[in-house]
Amino acid sequence: MDKRFDKVLEEINKGNKFLIVSHVNPEGDAVGSTIGLALALKELGKDVTPYLEDQVPAVYSFLPGVDLVTNKVESDDWYDAVFAVDCGKMERLGKGFEKIVNRGIIINIDHHTTNDHFGDINIIEPNACAAGELIYDLLNAASIKITRDIAVNLYVAIHTDTGSFKYSASTPEAFRKAGELVALGADPWEISQHVYESYPLKRIKLLIHVLETLELADGGKIASMVITRNLLNRFQAKDDLVEGFVNYARAIEGVEVALLFKETDAGKYKVSFRSKGNINVADVASSFGGGGHVNASGCNIRGSLELVKEQVIGAIEGSIRSKRLAN
Amino acid sequence: MDKRFDKVLEEINKGNKFLIVSHVNPEGDAVGSTIGLALALKELGKDVTPYLEDQVPAVYSFLPGVDLVTNKVESDDWYDAVFAVDCGKMERLGKGFEKIVNRGIIINIDHHTTNDHFGDINIIEPNACAAGELIYDLLNAASIKITRDIAVNLYVAIHTDTGSFKYSASTPEAFRKAGELVALGADPWEISQHVYESYPLKRIKLLIHVLETLELADGGKIASMVITRNLLNRFQAKDDLVEGFVNYARAIEGVEVALLFKETDAGKYKVSFRSKGNINVADVASSFGGGGHVNASGCNIRGSLELVKEQVIGAIEGSIRSKRLAN
Repeated sequence: MDKRFDKVLEEINKGNKFLIVSHVNPEGDAVGSTIGLALALKELGKDVTPYLEDQVPAVYSFLPGVDLVTNKVESDDWYDAVFAVDCGKMERLGKGFEKIVNRGIIINIDHHTTNDHFGDINIIEPNACAAGELIYDLLNAASIKITRDIAVNLYVAIHTDTGSFKYSASTPEAFRKAGELVALGADPWEISQHVYESYPLKRIKLLIHVLETLELADGGKIASMVITRNLLNRFQAKDDLVEGFVNYARAIEGVEVALLFKETDAGKYKVSFRSKGNINVADVASSFGGGGHVNASGCNIRGSLELVKEQVIGAIEGSIRSKRLAN
Repeated sequence: MDKRFDKVLEEINKGNKFLIVSHVNPEGDAVGSTIGLALALKELGKDVTPYLEDQVPAVYSFLPGVDLVTNKVESDDWYDAVFAVDCGKMERLGKGFEKIVNRGIIINIDHHTTNDHFGDINIIEPNACAAGELIYDLLNAASIKITRDIAVNLYVAIHTDTGSFKYSASTPEAFRKAGELVALGADPWEISQHVYESYPLKRIKLLIHVLETLELADGGKIASMVITRNLLNRFQAKDDLVEGFVNYARAIEGVEVALLFKETDAGKYKVSFRSKGNINVADVASSFGGGGHVNASGCNIRGSLELVKEQVIGAIEGSIRSKRLAN
């Protein structure tokens, strides 16, 4: 019997009205965990509001229960508990986070190592592959039946946060639970078609332009690409249109770190870092005020493209060199 | 207790010298199943020869035991049994298939629906996601310990044949077994880096050219791309360099069938078909003398590019139309 969730179950049992929130720019885990938990609490007859400040990305619009998601809560509403899922810091919930979250006791369910335990109850498990895995555990601990609709949402959470079972988060437990969710009705092929095979045509056109900017540095160990504001405007590209582009650069033989410089404003660049093996790009991103995971991180830097590239590539070269000396 | 393998186990127990073979143009399942079974039989102290007519693709050269693979067998060698894995027809083993396979009783272990049962013993399970899943079952039935090295090979078989757990072959059983193999030492992230993140730089350059040929037909339901012989020569591209390119076309919103026309010789095209949902491209490919699975198939056609495209796109349009009428 999983005792970790006892306090959470107590709150669920005694309460009736719940708010569920997750982070801005929601991806599969944020959306799937939020809706999955909402559907489960509804099964128990509770009054549930799943809230996301930003719109659910189009690729997740197929999720059963997606229509329940709102970006509005009444200013005087009070909840028996507010669940924050997949959210390391309260600020990540969005601009009005304090107004949103301070409407009941906060139950913080997350798998980020960097979670700052902002909840009244905190279930933080860095070994979980996704917040969705923890929702799965919670539902099992509560003996709440996982319907097909819940299974689809939780499968999407696990599937996307493990990069379709490629990343190191793909533990035996992640596989076991994904298999259970498939047995409960989640269809991997149907879901994959929605998540990975429903890109607008312009994504391909934009990709061609971005691939053309590919440059290698440090004897082929660093690969970088650029997206200018001009290009983003021309394609009316939102963030999700360029999602995953940086992985093309990492996929090249010999490349240890891949970089994508995205011009978000005049003289301002969002830099995405992806690494193979043990090169820790969270450290490098942190040194520029950003953060993330060992193999995937990001930061924002002001300056000309030339200077920004020089700084970042210099830092990465240093990191690769010190790694080599350490081995 | 799994009784399906009783006859196979009898042959393994009473024999000492085994040949293991798989198909030409070997992919992850062929390579992983062949080596995985070879390593397991070696654990039992048997004399084992894993044979593949074609070279193991570079992305699989990291597999433990890959050095055991040979493309030569002595002309007068006799084996206690010949295992054919992941091979639907004897001819798929290569040019000298009769000389290779008729060197002992044939044990045919495969998951292709179209397998013609060419073995003396046939273990054909279309529900298995990969031949590697059947090798996993066999080793368990035989109580042969799955070492880390065996686990890596079998994981690669399952991982690649399910498209990294995206295709419909990703059953609960496939997930459960993959999770077991991870627990036994297969590392999903390390393996994914080898399989998907070690492309030569020229793959990206070639990809740009191919993406530029993208055309839509049938109101956006059909997407097609072309690779000319000229381009293949310029990049000295073997088959594995363009592996997966056709998926870019399928990934577009609204596209139901994606096509890649690859000029293999003057006036000769290899056509790859990929579909979403229920459009059966195996049928279409068959009508041109090819074959494959519901969502992935291929054929070879002679003619000018214009005529070949016209014929194939016409056939696909017919198939989409009749599907619509049937629904």
